[in-house]
Amino acid sequence: MGLTIGVDIGGTKIAAGVVDESGAILETSTVPTPPTPEGVVDAIAAAVRTVGAGSSAEAVGIGAAGYVDDKRATVLFAPNIKWRHEALKDKIEQRVGMSVVVENDANAAAWGEYRFGAGRGHDDVVCITLGTGLGGGIILGGRLHRGRFGVAGEFGHIRMVPDGLLCGCGSQGCWEQYASGRALVRYARQRAAADPDRARTLLELGDGTAEGIEGRHVSEAARAGDPVAVDSFRELARWAGAGLADLASLFDPSAFIVGGGVSDEGDLVLEPIRKSFRRWLVGARYRPHAQVVAARLGGRAGLVGAADLARQG
Amino acid sequence: MGLTIGVDIGGTKIAAGVVDESGAILETSTVPTPPTPEGVVDAIAAAVRTVGAGSSAEAVGIGAAGYVDDKRATVLFAPNIKWRHEALKDKIEQRVGMSVVVENDANAAAWGEYRFGAGRGHDDVVCITLGTGLGGGIILGGRLHRGRFGVAGEFGHIRMVPDGLLCGCGSQGCWEQYASGRALVRYARQRAAADPDRARTLLELGDGTAEGIEGRHVSEAARAGDPVAVDSFRELARWAGAGLADLASLFDPSAFIVGGGVSDEGDLVLEPIRKSFRRWLVGARYRPHAQVVAARLGGRAGLVGAADLARQG
Amino acid sequence: MGLTIGVDIGGTKIAAGVVDESGAILETSTVPTPPTPEGVVDAIAAAVRTVGAGSSAEAVGIGAAGYVDDKRATVLFAPNIKWRHEALKDKIEQRVGMSVVVENDANAAAWGEYRFGAGRGHDDVVCITLGTGLGGGIILGGRLHRGRFGVAGEFGHIRMVPDGLLCGCGSQGCWEQYASGRALVRYARQRAAADPDRARTLLELGDGTAEGIEGRHVSEAARAGDPVAVDSFRELARWAGAGLADLASLFDPSAFIVGGGVSDEGDLVLEPIRKSFRRWLVGARYRPHAQVVAARLGGRAGLVGAADLARQG
Amino acid sequence: MGLTIGVDIGGTKIAAGVVDESGAILETSTVPTPPTPEGVVDAIAAAVRTVGAGSSAEAVGIGAAGYVDDKRATVLFAPNIKWRHEALKDKIEQRVGMSVVVENDANAAAWGEYRFGAGRGHDDVVCITLGTGLGGGIILGGRLHRGRFGVAGEFGHIRMVPDGLLCGCGSQGCWEQYASGRALVRYARQRAAADPDRARTLLELGDGTAEGIEGRHVSEAARAGDPVAVDSFRELARWAGAGLADLASLFDPSAFIVGGGVSDEGDLVLEPIRKSFRRWLVGARYRPHAQVVAARLGGRAGLVGAADLARQG
Repeated sequence: MGLTIGVDIGGTKIAAGVVDESGAILETSTVPTPPTPEGVVDAIAAAVRTVGAGSSAEAVGIGAAGYVDDKRATVLFAPNIKWRHEALKDKIEQRVGMSVVVENDANAAAWGEYRFGAGRGHDDVVCITLGTGLGGGIILGGRLHRGRFGVAGEFGHIRMVPDGLLCGCGSQGCWEQYASGRALVRYARQRAAADPDRARTLLELGDGTAEGIEGRHVSEAARAGDPVAVDSFRELARWAGAGLADLASLFDPSAFIVGGGVSDEGDLVLEPIRKSFRRWLVGARYRPHAQVVAARLGGRAGLVGAADLARQG
Repeated sequence: MGLTIGVDIGGTKIAAGVVDESGAILETSTVPTPPTPEGVVDAIAAAVRTVGAGSSAEAVGIGAAGYVDDKRATVLFAPNIKWRHEALKDKIEQRVGMSVVVENDANAAAWGEYRFGAGRGHDDVVCITLGTGLGGGIILGGRLHRGRFGVAGEFGHIRMVPDGLLCGCGSQGCWEQYASGRALVRYARQRAAADPDRARTLLELGDGTAEGIEGRHVSEAARAGDPVAVDSFRELARWAGAGLADLASLFDPSAFIVGGGVSDEGDLVLEPIRKSFRRWLVGARYRPHAQVVAARLGGRAGLVGAADLARQG
Repeated sequence: MGLTIGVDIGGTKIAAGVVDESGAILETSTVPTPPTPEGVVDAIAAAVRTVGAGSSAEAVGIGAAGYVDDKRATVLFAPNIKWRHEALKDKIEQRVGMSVVVENDANAAAWGEYRFGAGRGHDDVVCITLGTGLGGGIILGGRLHRGRFGVAGEFGHIRMVPDGLLCGCGSQGCWEQYASGRALVRYARQRAAADPDRARTLLELGDGTAEGIEGRHVSEAARAGDPVAVDSFRELARWAGAGLADLASLFDPSAFIVGGGVSDEGDLVLEPIRKSFRRWLVGARYRPHAQVVAARLGGRAGLVGAADLARQG
Repeated sequence: MGLTIGVDIGGTKIAAGVVDESGAILETSTVPTPPTPEGVVDAIAAAVRTVGAGSSAEAVGIGAAGYVDDKRATVLFAPNIKWRHEALKDKIEQRVGMSVVVENDANAAAWGEYRFGAGRGHDDVVCITLGTGLGGGIILGGRLHRGRFGVAGEFGHIRMVPDGLLCGCGSQGCWEQYASGRALVRYARQRAAADPDRARTLLELGDGTAEGIEGRHVSEAARAGDPVAVDSFRELARWAGAGLADLASLFDPSAFIVGGGVSDEGDLVLEPIRKSFRRWLVGARYRPHAQVVAARLGGRAGLVGAADLARQG
């Protein structure tokens, strides 16, 4: 199969793109994300038709946040779009006349990195995406591990702290409460509230209040060496690295790929993650272990990965 | 391939057995575990030769506690036997004249359960062994997942409690410190020390002191309904179930198999594990999920699994 | 001094009462709690004038939720009423023509129990109030310990879980997030959501949903032996008892008094608290230690205590 | 009363000193600490007689590690010397012919700092001693708070981490497992084992192994700016400061005094303690709060405090 189309459903826009066998995006079409569940379905179909018109694309891969069933056809539960048992594959196939594969968006991004990004040359790769929350994807023996019911790789919700922070999922102490963009902001706000003098630079980037601090302020301040921002990144990194050490004990991959907006800061966050990973890795002296590397495809990983999964069939 | 030989290396004895294609053990030979690393190698060879003599067995599978390399040939690190980079495959092949496969013992046991025990009919199975410590094995898509470096499935050392109990591995808060036979005894001793009146029955089974309480006392007392022993099993089960909920988020298997000595108590421990698993399972309302079942092969799982891995080649 | 007036400021009503030297309430006046900070001041004055008219009461004690300064005159911070540096003593004295003492409400309740309730005969008493939140009061050597700045005894906000649940105070892992009426409801809801079958009885008491479970449902179900409700009380009790063990290491009182709405369930909650207290009490074998007893004055403790503090001057 | 004698019982030596009303030590006598419980009693008596001969000292105060009863006469339990219900007051009075007061050693040191050191001018002071373990003393309203049974102020054993590190006291997660000299060494060893390259300087100070790192190496390396040693001090400080924030919620003193060997490093450890204290202090914006200051008397605090307690009678 030659060209395929990948779809990435974001909170503000939906992107569809024609992707070739080398993972290059040849053309894209973008539409705003509609507010209703059915509107999103329509918008996906429209974006695919627009970008696909005139191309020889033969199949579509869609990455969606949420649980996707083991047939890669139905979104069981999508927290943001409010899909419940949404038969997305059938609906889109009927409207665009191409075969469709639906995949969890973090899985699609992991697949993209594995095939065309930081995971090239590895057979066993575990990706974590430090975005607003924390997502992940698992490639074992060159295959995407989806789990028996299609819901493997929900890294964000393993319990890091018994009786810990409440999570939107209803559980407590979930990893994404401690290692994600949202956690980063919480760390910065708590520190700024407790010690406004020390956080002066950071506070000035926002509206002057702890509550007004946003993620981009923390990143900007950290790049300028602000101690509160740097401490906040380190706190996030401690949790991220400790969780990767757990994943090493479980999956034993040859590489961990760290993506998502938080990872855009590069070594500012990667180095403390590696430090924490080494500290908590069990048996480090007696075993070889995975590298921790930055993702390479940035925001394109999901679209490219979804397209490639459609190509694999 | 018809018959193969499986070897199980225990703390007190080494067992070798001839196993057929249905997983039945036709004959066994047992020798005491020698105190020296090289002595163990000799004893394995002797046991294999004894049981293999006169049989048509063609290959040997050895289950060993510790890290085994990705070629299934060398034991990188065995905490109890003090093997370090022990070329076990080569040594045994030279002495017994059959091809040898070395596998982590918990992996071997998991494979045994998958092929001939509680895992039959499942493709994606995660086993935990609640013995003195906590071990595990992973079968995904019908294949044993060994990891890139051969050390996947070290469940006992994922971190359940930040800044938690010290573990022999050098880390803190490892799962096996909270869910294992050793943990069970600690729970019982702590409770008996704090409240000797309530623990009277349990204390009488030992030497009357909290320190004198052993695992078998806790089991016996729990079967008789002793409140301290029952509480101790429940505490273990809370941690075991919470950990399985994490593994469900990661691996999404169709079944969890719980084996090891602690699981011999059956529903006394399985039911509270299931209760805790349900409580902490993320997204339980929106997704199908794994069953939690008891292992069926008991202490034979490792030997039978190792023999079958040798057959698979 | 003979008669004094005590004032209790609740979320829905403000009660003022004339109290004699034996702690008996001779007469009361109750008004609804107004919605504005200044309205509450007016209502207090009105209630005091009403109940004091015709009595020989000479002084007023007011119990207020929040931080009260070391002069017992100004409410520094009252989270519910939104007082900030409210000069309550001066305002009420001007309006009612009697001398006024302002005290933290949990301190007032502790003093009431110490003088006329479960604390009689003890010199060193620590009270915890398990209401919606968790409050406390400390009597050492027969004196109320207020602290240098008047804000001692904020038991609800000691950290029980590092990186634990967010608290309204801005910190994390505060004791009241784990041992309070609000925590009890959370435990019940989480358990009901995870296992609706087991929680059937409890769910039927409310609107059938986990979110519809209220504190009174948990109490009613627990009294009827419902397993989910009983488990929820036990979970609360584990945290309450563990915290009392900490307080024993710090204050070493002769008695702990447990009050507040949760304690109305008596031994249903007191016994598991004692069990947990014994389990976590340090050095229990080598030292005498405090009793854990139920409060006796119920909802009157605050009013009676405030009145008596006014008498002490 | 004019001169009194203070006694400090250390692990290697016992010191007795004549102390005047200003807290000055006029003369001292030191003997090695004998290995047997009764030997220690003899040695105390000998040291007191030696230093007291020719002085006009009239009373003796003895600081002892362990639980001391509420009559300040009997050591209920001394973990190191193996005293159990040792009637120390009577025995020493018989041998030296002076009245004797026995006090917990951390209480004595706190009293010394309160009277003649960093606590002068404060009425409500809480001291923590970061030595091998973590001890403490409480002065409220100018009086040493001993508790109903004489065992208040056992700060080292409040629970900072549920299910945390085992403590010699039999409990888990005790503060002194996270904030003490012993904890500091553990942090450094763990970090050095996990990342020997980064810890090169620190490792070279000892025998080159992680296990060979001692407290003095960590201090020396930290002063030289070694990152692993500095991180280890910061980790200790995070726990120390968080615990002080709890004590502020409970006791609300005007000053915290931090003593013990760890505090000898001054601002290297005090500044991160203050930072952590501010971060976790509840309600910091709405209330005045305690200063965190370094102890001033060093190792003399216990002897001087014991002598002054004897003077107070």
